[in-house]
Amino acid sequence: MRILGIDPGSRITGYGIIDESAGKLQFVACGVIRTTPDYPFSHRVNEIFDGINEVIHIHEPVVAAVEDLFLAANPRSALKLGQARGAAVVAATQNGLATHDYSPRTVKQAVAGYGQAEKEQVQHMVKVLLALSGSPSSDAADALAVAICHANQFQIITSS
Amino acid sequence: MRILGIDPGSRITGYGIIDESAGKLQFVACGVIRTTPDYPFSHRVNEIFDGINEVIHIHEPVVAAVEDLFLAANPRSALKLGQARGAAVVAATQNGLATHDYSPRTVKQAVAGYGQAEKEQVQHMVKVLLALSGSPSSDAADALAVAICHANQFQIITSS
Repeated sequence: MRILGIDPGSRITGYGIIDESAGKLQFVACGVIRTTPDYPFSHRVNEIFDGINEVIHIHEPVVAAVEDLFLAANPRSALKLGQARGAAVVAATQNGLATHDYSPRTVKQAVAGYGQAEKEQVQHMVKVLLALSGSPSSDAADALAVAICHANQFQIITSS
Repeated sequence: MRILGIDPGSRITGYGIIDESAGKLQFVACGVIRTTPDYPFSHRVNEIFDGINEVIHIHEPVVAAVEDLFLAANPRSALKLGQARGAAVVAATQNGLATHDYSPRTVKQAVAGYGQAEKEQVQHMVKVLLALSGSPSSDAADALAVAICHANQFQIITSS
């Protein structure tokens, strides 16, 4: 099962792709989609759709796991984040991927065993669980963590 | 110029289409996209994309005007609303429509001359400005109001 993890953000959207087979996880790809700061917001939302669309076409995952509610400081931030998330979800569903939502707490619990884990801890555990030689960026690591979290719903994770 | 107005909502998304020519406005169509309450939220977001996509394919507008920030009571509502809006914006931009954002205040000012106008007042003025025989539903009226607001940016509105 090839899983696409997405950590949506209006400025930077992280994505991470892993293969899961009989509880073994294999890193495939990860990266970020940066939106153009000076562009109108609708255009930036579209950049996220295009970016995720391209990632799906290249790597052909069969399922998407998307990080849910970020504890936005205020409704305006949440509205922006929501639009980024909506664009990512639509890109996944329009490509026929089943889409699952995971809260940040569930994701952290899955990769670091602790729902309040720090970003650095998540980054480190993603590196360990996927046996990566280097550390992915924070946003890409978060996306990989969401993918790992989804794999974890069905299998006991063992390091690959 | 055929304008698609959109009033995004996670439960009900209103749409309204008008033609504008030399300051004259002509009603084309309006309606609502209802998402399925029991479905996973990602699926509902996708229903909004599909609905707007279909409306665009049927009526072929060239520009979209999308209502901006609803004063959501809390970040969770804003995140949901944002996803609905993101899906609608992506449907418009993926179909090549230029997309413009208007705040509720600007929309109300444009159709009712008062930024704090009540829903009923907006509904009434939309009916008058487009010379409709009946009243559209509140959500469809809001979407038509956004379309009228966009037309108003370029022309002095005269009743058609």
